[in-house]
Amino acid sequence: MSTPPAPSSMSFVHDTLAQRVVFDTGRAVDAAVEQAGPLGITRPLLISTDGTHAVAEAIAGRLTPAAHWRDAVQHVPRDIADAATATARESGADGLISIGGGSATGLAKAVALETGLPIIAVPTTYAASEATPVWGITEERTKTTGVDPVVLPKVVVYDSDLVATLPHDMAVASGLNALAHSVDSLWAPKSDPINRAYCIESARALATALRGLSGEGGREAREQALYGCYLSGVAFASAGSGLHHKICHVLGGTFNLPHAETHSVVLRHVAALNLPAVPGIADQLAHALGDDGGHAVAALNDLYREVGAPRSLAELGMPEDGIPEAVERVLAAVPAGNPVEVTAENMTALLTAAFHGTDPATV
Amino acid sequence: MSTPPAPSSMSFVHDTLAQRVVFDTGRAVDAAVEQAGPLGITRPLLISTDGTHAVAEAIAGRLTPAAHWRDAVQHVPRDIADAATATARESGADGLISIGGGSATGLAKAVALETGLPIIAVPTTYAASEATPVWGITEERTKTTGVDPVVLPKVVVYDSDLVATLPHDMAVASGLNALAHSVDSLWAPKSDPINRAYCIESARALATALRGLSGEGGREAREQALYGCYLSGVAFASAGSGLHHKICHVLGGTFNLPHAETHSVVLRHVAALNLPAVPGIADQLAHALGDDGGHAVAALNDLYREVGAPRSLAELGMPEDGIPEAVERVLAAVPAGNPVEVTAENMTALLTAAFHGTDPATV
Repeated sequence: MSTPPAPSSMSFVHDTLAQRVVFDTGRAVDAAVEQAGPLGITRPLLISTDGTHAVAEAIAGRLTPAAHWRDAVQHVPRDIADAATATARESGADGLISIGGGSATGLAKAVALETGLPIIAVPTTYAASEATPVWGITEERTKTTGVDPVVLPKVVVYDSDLVATLPHDMAVASGLNALAHSVDSLWAPKSDPINRAYCIESARALATALRGLSGEGGREAREQALYGCYLSGVAFASAGSGLHHKICHVLGGTFNLPHAETHSVVLRHVAALNLPAVPGIADQLAHALGDDGGHAVAALNDLYREVGAPRSLAELGMPEDGIPEAVERVLAAVPAGNPVEVTAENMTALLTAAFHGTDPATV
Repeated sequence: MSTPPAPSSMSFVHDTLAQRVVFDTGRAVDAAVEQAGPLGITRPLLISTDGTHAVAEAIAGRLTPAAHWRDAVQHVPRDIADAATATARESGADGLISIGGGSATGLAKAVALETGLPIIAVPTTYAASEATPVWGITEERTKTTGVDPVVLPKVVVYDSDLVATLPHDMAVASGLNALAHSVDSLWAPKSDPINRAYCIESARALATALRGLSGEGGREAREQALYGCYLSGVAFASAGSGLHHKICHVLGGTFNLPHAETHSVVLRHVAALNLPAVPGIADQLAHALGDDGGHAVAALNDLYREVGAPRSLAELGMPEDGIPEAVERVLAAVPAGNPVEVTAENMTALLTAAFHGTDPATV
């Protein structure tokens, strides 16, 4: 049984986390090298993934890395986290530089959690993990997540050239994953006026950027996407995991679904469930998403059509008979303060609609 | 000769500073006591001013203060800063709790600068100093300011009951002082899209609050004012001192003018000078100030009329023959990146208009 939040309440505790963020298109390697010195990083463990090894190698040409770890995959499997941590220790690394999306950043966080080493994150997707102190490690179909300030990257370097080669469908899914951070922060347990202001601004930037990515926006759209992504992560770090993230953690961990696509599919269904209970916030979100009529879910449905977003859990490989197990796991994880009561009934309906990719109702 | 900024540029370095902020109307004493423990503060030096001694005494009833300093005045005179620092050292204080406006917070910062002691700030005006790592000390008519992370309060406790007794004219001047932090951050040397987003949100909250304070807004208006004030300070801390603050520092230090009132008077004149050069930002600001026609200076003039704002430097006690000295000092301190070139001519015109309280032109 969840308690309705009081979105207008001005009684809250807000923790702002220290972080440096560098936006510098075309200068990722230079910026990463420049930022290492002030952090005392002279022998980093470099972490890269398919598609980002070359950037890591360019950094290795300017610093002397302790080691270069090339094996980062979705959801941070425990065995890979342990092996990378051992490498960091054995090589005498004095810091971590991750180049990649949520997989690379997530692995760096898993290593930092054990070693305390500072992270410079160079994101190449819109995962936004780089802006949060949230870590996650997956073991036996279950993703364990936690919050620890030590895993928050000390510096984030955004270079929009690095997202230029992201395939369009991945850019869309990743951008909607970022939007999910923003939207879910509107009702997460520690949602407050300050992080909601970030949410709305990032939703505005992300919706603009997603439309630009699908059109001829180019560099400007990618920069807006990274900017919106960053603010979405800051909002999420402050507000905590709302219902949307609890659902997606269950789905990702249980069925090994692709992270960003899962968030894309689920987002508008959670929005349709919760927004009617918070009309003032729904109006602001609708305006930010470009719908001045105040219909945030309609704005999302339009946006999904315009950008060709993933729509169904079925296409992501979730088995239909997995819905009851997912419902059960979600019900055990409903966050405090969700604006509507979460029941087996409405969660089954939500996951069934998400499974089939049905448009959520906009009334 | 200043360089025009590129407000649309996405090339920047943004440092977010760690801080906890507590909003809790009616619970300032409880919240200050609750927050002291996690900071390791068991024997604070309490700093209060006329009107806030009772709150300090209530805190003293719950903690064992090392000492209670009751003498904080405008602009932090050097001799008072030195004496308070000596008291902190001699009494064995392990932290500072300031209760009051910019004078109290400013004195706590001066003590922290020398001792490194953590600060819990309990603001009773809309000074916003509590949200910045900027310190200032005045000696021989000149205010020296600097930036040091050690002076940023670790925790800020906002209790809107504490601003309820602020006389209306002081509330207005203090609220406009906060608005000046926001507006000046739009073109300050380190202005970037992130801190400009704070500026616009805080301008919206402050304009709403100021109108409410002048009407029947009561608690809600005061909470909005404190919220807008906080974001204005965060924006200012990040963006640095723009032209407006350089002018006010000169005027305050040279002629010992009242701080908030000076900022109130000067703000709209600097806005009128700079906004025509940054039309996109001017539109956003106008919208935030409640003028959808896009005339930010007209919106400011309207706001000043509605809330009965201070309008002339003459009424604040500045001598008219001080203008040339002020112009000379301002020209020596023009910040990088001001959107228009600052000359003896336009600065003399600006200060003359501010001296007489003439409405700035809205074309």
